Amino acid sequence: MDGADSLIETSVQAGVDVCFANPGTTEMHLVAALDRSTRMRAVLGLFEGVCTGAADGYGRMTGRPAATLLHLGPGFANGIANLHNARRAQTPVVNWVGDQATWHLAADAPLTSDIESLARPVGWVRSNTGAETLARDGADTIAASLDAPGRVATLIIPADAAWEAAAGPARPKKPIEPRRVDDAAVAAAAETLALEGACLFLGGVAALSESGVRAAHRIATGTGCRVLSETFSSRNEFGPELPVAPPLPYFPEQGRETLGDASRVVLAGAREPVSFFGYAGQPSAILRDDQPISTLAGAEDNVVGALEALADRVGAEGPIAPRPQAEPATGPLTVGSLGQTLAALIPENAIVVNEAATTGLAFNVFAPSAARHTSLGLTGGAIGQGLPCAVGAAIACPDRPVTAFQADGSGLYTMQALWTMARESLDVVVVICANRAYRILQAELARAGVAEPGPKAMGLTDLSNPPIDWVSAAKAFGVPGTSVNDTDAFAAAYRRALAEPGPQLIEAVL
Amino acid sequence: MDGADSLIETSVQAGVDVCFANPGTTEMHLVAALDRSTRMRAVLGLFEGVCTGAADGYGRMTGRPAATLLHLGPGFANGIANLHNARRAQTPVVNWVGDQATWHLAADAPLTSDIESLARPVGWVRSNTGAETLARDGADTIAASLDAPGRVATLIIPADAAWEAAAGPARPKKPIEPRRVDDAAVAAAAETLALEGACLFLGGVAALSESGVRAAHRIATGTGCRVLSETFSSRNEFGPELPVAPPLPYFPEQGRETLGDASRVVLAGAREPVSFFGYAGQPSAILRDDQPISTLAGAEDNVVGALEALADRVGAEGPIAPRPQAEPATGPLTVGSLGQTLAALIPENAIVVNEAATTGLAFNVFAPSAARHTSLGLTGGAIGQGLPCAVGAAIACPDRPVTAFQADGSGLYTMQALWTMARESLDVVVVICANRAYRILQAELARAGVAEPGPKAMGLTDLSNPPIDWVSAAKAFGVPGTSVNDTDAFAAAYRRALAEPGPQLIEAVL
Repeated sequence: MDGADSLIETSVQAGVDVCFANPGTTEMHLVAALDRSTRMRAVLGLFEGVCTGAADGYGRMTGRPAATLLHLGPGFANGIANLHNARRAQTPVVNWVGDQATWHLAADAPLTSDIESLARPVGWVRSNTGAETLARDGADTIAASLDAPGRVATLIIPADAAWEAAAGPARPKKPIEPRRVDDAAVAAAAETLALEGACLFLGGVAALSESGVRAAHRIATGTGCRVLSETFSSRNEFGPELPVAPPLPYFPEQGRETLGDASRVVLAGAREPVSFFGYAGQPSAILRDDQPISTLAGAEDNVVGALEALADRVGAEGPIAPRPQAEPATGPLTVGSLGQTLAALIPENAIVVNEAATTGLAFNVFAPSAARHTSLGLTGGAIGQGLPCAVGAAIACPDRPVTAFQADGSGLYTMQALWTMARESLDVVVVICANRAYRILQAELARAGVAEPGPKAMGLTDLSNPPIDWVSAAKAFGVPGTSVNDTDAFAAAYRRALAEPGPQLIEAVL
Repeated sequence: MDGADSLIETSVQAGVDVCFANPGTTEMHLVAALDRSTRMRAVLGLFEGVCTGAADGYGRMTGRPAATLLHLGPGFANGIANLHNARRAQTPVVNWVGDQATWHLAADAPLTSDIESLARPVGWVRSNTGAETLARDGADTIAASLDAPGRVATLIIPADAAWEAAAGPARPKKPIEPRRVDDAAVAAAAETLALEGACLFLGGVAALSESGVRAAHRIATGTGCRVLSETFSSRNEFGPELPVAPPLPYFPEQGRETLGDASRVVLAGAREPVSFFGYAGQPSAILRDDQPISTLAGAEDNVVGALEALADRVGAEGPIAPRPQAEPATGPLTVGSLGQTLAALIPENAIVVNEAATTGLAFNVFAPSAARHTSLGLTGGAIGQGLPCAVGAAIACPDRPVTAFQADGSGLYTMQALWTMARESLDVVVVICANRAYRILQAELARAGVAEPGPKAMGLTDLSNPPIDWVSAAKAFGVPGTSVNDTDAFAAAYRRALAEPGPQLIEAVL
């Protein structure tokens, strides 16, 4: 058994059995060990951002980390954007990054660079120093990824540590469990939320789980408080029978309007709401100084336990407010008709990976009353998350249909994910919202005071010259595709795509 | 004038007038300033690695930095792999990375991360702190990029520094010039190279310039020494009338064989030769302890000046050794027939961006006797450099035909560069070497002792299931393409592609 075998065996024993890989020379002994293992699945991505985004999607759906296998500093760097999203989603992810052999580092060969400096901004990092400690470091890395609430953990593996002899696997290490919220904090929150105009603000996977939103609904019914959630969530459970915690709108002035009449805010797993970006003349905070903030449970706490304890103390069962029901629309394809129709047609038990950006607005209105489904959002703002995340979700949940509702500009960053969908025959329907622009930036240009953008500013936010042909892009990667610009045609194409096995792409031209 | 205007104006005055951009919200005021400037060209990339690779290609061809415009940490991270290549190529590159407004950093909004930690591994970094110092920091960043021999320099720009008022542009700062090599070092090298079995080892843009290789050839003629160069060079000048400094072969045992009978080695702009990767049972060094190494000139020195001084002292004019002449081959397309045919047909004054990896072997043999051309190589080993680098080279040299000789596996990392070629109507012929495998990794697997890879190891190095359809990929981005699997058909397609304006793609199926 070499170091690589000891790492793979340790990981399998700790419940990590999927590896999203884009290896190079320094990882060949790890590849050989994957080859020898019967229990670790290896999935190839053509670009590292596919691997890291897939690991994020997998971790969101299972609560367990997948591993990524990446090639030194530059290979790891290609995966950072989606690791940033995973970090903000508090998703457990384990990265295995091959490095030069320990004794070869000093030679500063061409691919050598400071991997720790690259990895630190996305989470926990350890540099292994030899085969005899690789299994132990592997177990520690997995535990680190699972420390509550979950995080990105990176293990840097020298090539010689993988090929030198090792004693055997290490036993799994117990991660840090969520802390129990004490009764005093629950009592304090109960008192606060009973006050006129109070708002309960949810954030994180636990608070937005079915248990979390059900407990929050009982609290709201019992106390009269309002329930809201962070703008972008790792994971939402939606369905006609489920309570909703509406997300805070994206732009800060909208957020201030939404929260303007809140007398006070209690955080449950959420952070204090802040503006996504800073704008001239506006503060970072969404809340005013006269709107006190208190915390029921932080991200590291047992948030559901705290919500349920609070609901048991002050809650009451109550009906769910009626919500707009989506029916398929008709006519030319617009943001409104696309979102409404998609919401009307998503199948029961679907997973929707939502990186539709500006095109998602209408869908987001209808999603809470669509068929029961799980929605995964863009937590870190690093675009190019949707298609890889859909790969990971589909591998995590082979029995659930996945729809990637994807903005075109963002989708281009990691379009190579389409190939992995084809190779692995994943049941993913990709809906590309082809408005052929960085529409959000056109809005932001206007917000920056550019009333009439000149040709350069227009050029830097426009994707129509030449237009991207997404059907050809899908074909390039072995995914059947079709293009539609009419709502009925979209509905028919989406129904057909759902009925076909394997991935399908629909370019919805807006 | 706001800070953004002061930066753009400073840069134009310092000779930086091309910006490869993939901006986001925090860069909107910089986009507005680009819009107002009549002298700065802005080129959009659909992925940040396209922008940084293009800046590398531009810098290699002009000796002047282009700027990149990137969006916070995750956007910058997407550009790191090609910045790593630029770092190893010693290319001057300037990065402008937008960050949160100074007063918004503490809010730790979703896209916030430690950009300095990401940027340090690729070079010089400065974090600007306000509009009043932005022009000065901009001038310092440009100078830092041009400090001999050239490097990647990153300026982190808070959004408020771009939008707040500024006094005006800053005057250009003088970069550190190459150091003159003193006469004693030249005299010592002259003595060493006159000894039996001595080898002159060239590295870096200066040593491999036309002046550099001509001086080295005179030195070799006068002293009888051998001339070699580093395995991967930023830039080579090739042509029938030019001397050649053959590159050290890639694998270390081949390198040892090549240098085995060298009695001593003198470095000119080069680093001591080391193995690209460490292999079990092999040292890092290519040279033995009994092969002394001395230095004529380091990378920061005036390498050409030193070579010419040395040539003036001990050199002699001499004929150039005959080299194999390439004629178009015929028959089925193979690594040999493709490389030979391409070398036979590349047009006079071409720029060849060579990221053909294993498929490049035959071409590399014939390139020195092909028509006069410039070749740009993969200096840092971070794959996905070729297509972006071709974009930058074409924008730097609009009158020169560019051929991107591109491995398929590597090309997939930054295929979005095809769109920028189409949008900017760049005269680039892309030749995709479609062997549908990570062939180098299949070789490395064997070197790692895996004689018979199992399905997982084969799967992780194989791109044939499904095969990538590069003609459809080109079509997706607005580039006309054709697929060939016969040498005559390749020759015809290449000739046709050269004759057409704008980009063309040829998928050469091997």
